[in-house]
Amino acid sequence: MQKLKGTAVVAHGGGPTAVINASLAGVIEERRRHGEIVALYGARHGIQGVLAEDFLDLDREDPNLIELIARTPGSALGSCRYKVKEPDYERILEVFRAHNVRYFFYTGGNDSMDTTMKVAQLARQSGYELRAIGIPKTIDNDLAETDHSPGYGSAALFYACALRDIGADLRELPGRVTVVEVMGRNAGWLTAATALARHQPDDPPHLIYLPERPLPAEKLLADVEAVYRRLGYAVVAVCEGQRDEKGEPFGADLIAADGFAHALAGNLAHALSQLIARRLKLRARSEKPGLLGRTSAAFVSESDRQEARICGREAVHAALEGESEKMVTLVREPGAAYRVRTGLVELERVANVERRFPTEWIHPEGNDVLGPFLEYARPLTGEIAPRARLSGTPVPRRLG
Amino acid sequence: MQKLKGTAVVAHGGGPTAVINASLAGVIEERRRHGEIVALYGARHGIQGVLAEDFLDLDREDPNLIELIARTPGSALGSCRYKVKEPDYERILEVFRAHNVRYFFYTGGNDSMDTTMKVAQLARQSGYELRAIGIPKTIDNDLAETDHSPGYGSAALFYACALRDIGADLRELPGRVTVVEVMGRNAGWLTAATALARHQPDDPPHLIYLPERPLPAEKLLADVEAVYRRLGYAVVAVCEGQRDEKGEPFGADLIAADGFAHALAGNLAHALSQLIARRLKLRARSEKPGLLGRTSAAFVSESDRQEARICGREAVHAALEGESEKMVTLVREPGAAYRVRTGLVELERVANVERRFPTEWIHPEGNDVLGPFLEYARPLTGEIAPRARLSGTPVPRRLG
Repeated sequence: MQKLKGTAVVAHGGGPTAVINASLAGVIEERRRHGEIVALYGARHGIQGVLAEDFLDLDREDPNLIELIARTPGSALGSCRYKVKEPDYERILEVFRAHNVRYFFYTGGNDSMDTTMKVAQLARQSGYELRAIGIPKTIDNDLAETDHSPGYGSAALFYACALRDIGADLRELPGRVTVVEVMGRNAGWLTAATALARHQPDDPPHLIYLPERPLPAEKLLADVEAVYRRLGYAVVAVCEGQRDEKGEPFGADLIAADGFAHALAGNLAHALSQLIARRLKLRARSEKPGLLGRTSAAFVSESDRQEARICGREAVHAALEGESEKMVTLVREPGAAYRVRTGLVELERVANVERRFPTEWIHPEGNDVLGPFLEYARPLTGEIAPRARLSGTPVPRRLG
Repeated sequence: MQKLKGTAVVAHGGGPTAVINASLAGVIEERRRHGEIVALYGARHGIQGVLAEDFLDLDREDPNLIELIARTPGSALGSCRYKVKEPDYERILEVFRAHNVRYFFYTGGNDSMDTTMKVAQLARQSGYELRAIGIPKTIDNDLAETDHSPGYGSAALFYACALRDIGADLRELPGRVTVVEVMGRNAGWLTAATALARHQPDDPPHLIYLPERPLPAEKLLADVEAVYRRLGYAVVAVCEGQRDEKGEPFGADLIAADGFAHALAGNLAHALSQLIARRLKLRARSEKPGLLGRTSAAFVSESDRQEARICGREAVHAALEGESEKMVTLVREPGAAYRVRTGLVELERVANVERRFPTEWIHPEGNDVLGPFLEYARPLTGEIAPRARLSGTPVPRRLG
């Protein structure tokens, strides 16, 4: 295969994750081992940085600092949610030509993979030799064709620990219901992960609802009431994208009468807690960790970090092998012990495709996840310890 | 001083904290060194456990497990928010007599100190010898007569890191405003602590509002707009108990026209983000870590944990010295290096007293805190590291 000499650009698209910088470090590390890439630029704020010709010279960064950044959540390059328009693609190519950019590594979700594919297609049609490889990244785990996406394991760890800890607070100070809102847009992968910190029966969360299963408000209320009667408190995990049985924002029909549905947009857990308080006459509150779920420096899964780095390295390796218009994937090896290797998939098979949570992993009641999901997800977060509890030997009563 | 032989009861009142179990471990540890306390009971769910004669025999717990629990946030005994009524006090005394309880250690905030005081007063008036000592505990830091309260340092660490991390997310993916809701009821101590993770000018949070300073909605909007124009994003920390200049729930006058003010109760940050989105036409969102701020196992300040334990030990020590109707305090020693010792204060001086954030530590603009607060608070959380960032050498542009 012919060697292609030129500059490489690496960029980040969409929401940051806890390990996107590990993928960046993987790109930097692998690139050092090959002479064909004569310079490595980081585009500031994703494709917007390419359009604005706003690059950082990554060859000027101290390798020790890169190792620190590899362990830091968030996007060291900055990211964007810019939806690339038709005329932008010509401009991207113009910028690439000006800097002799021959390698393009875009770390992102299914939107970013679409951008990567279109840039690569235009280059090919224009006869400009460019190798474009996508590096998977999403806390939502909704990228197709990969066992899972870097970023998911750490966000899953955050939410599993959050529900364990919030759940402990309610157990210790009962008489309350709380609804915790979990990120994930239209996919329930992260919400499902809240089940991963359960160790004993009745450990929270007691109810887990996923957007893949439309949910009648009355079902939610009946579920919460049943848990509360049994335990004296209830902890609910719900995805920000949950819809009711009509496909409407959850509970819209019930709260529309009061005319404040719009006030609750973007605040599902609060809407549900209000509904529970009003209809069940229970003390209800909501928690919305929001962005903390993808940015908290305290919750990074070690295997997630390692795999993110490997994906970055593999992107460079594949491009130098002549690959283009592909995304790096993680492939789980068969066998009892968890092991993954990398693979490659055509970008057109992942661009704009949303992989939703498998319905066969949802409990028939629609309020929990099933064992096969736990087996799938456990290696991605690593072991989650229970909180220590007293053995609790009661003192015999002396009064009536 | 005459030795008093009998049973001791330890209990937790109000919201759990990250280090209340460290105080419990301190009580257990100190008690082991003295023979006068013939048995140590833990009341389940605070004073409700006393009323229900629901005790755990803490002498049956493995010391190694107690050490694990000392490092676990939350209340291992369970807590309550029960407001003790007049007839309850007789019942409490009846239960204490039945178990020969001569020592009562109640770990809590100003409500719990009131309960402790009244139990002790009734015992004294009834001629029943009882030594009652309060152990300070509140994330809100609103207990009077103590330099600070165990629980505050860890919650302050949580919120400082939360604002650092959420702020990084917005810096990296700008074009947004976020309002983060911080616990603290009517006291701004925790909200103020969000300033502790700033390392560079323009580090988030950019605006900090405290309930001790009433805030006109128009001031908030002007502040947010100014920050956004300068930086391209804005991060706001606001206390859940913030009030507008009329002392009303913040922004009530502005949102009342839409008739959904009640829908926003208990959800201030969301209300403010809606207001910002509507009035400034900016993308705005809110985060509400809520209970995570006091229960997260990942954020425990080492000095907070040590001090909580010392307070537990000192409560037992003081009671055995004959003290009663007092609360343990933390007294900061003069000098450059941070050092504290314990003290004692009459319960009547802290019962139901709310210590608010000093107005002289609030910026004249009402949207930030001043240096003396940072000096006060830094030793309580310990050092908070900045997130690693690229040095960022720009590549010279080649196009127009």
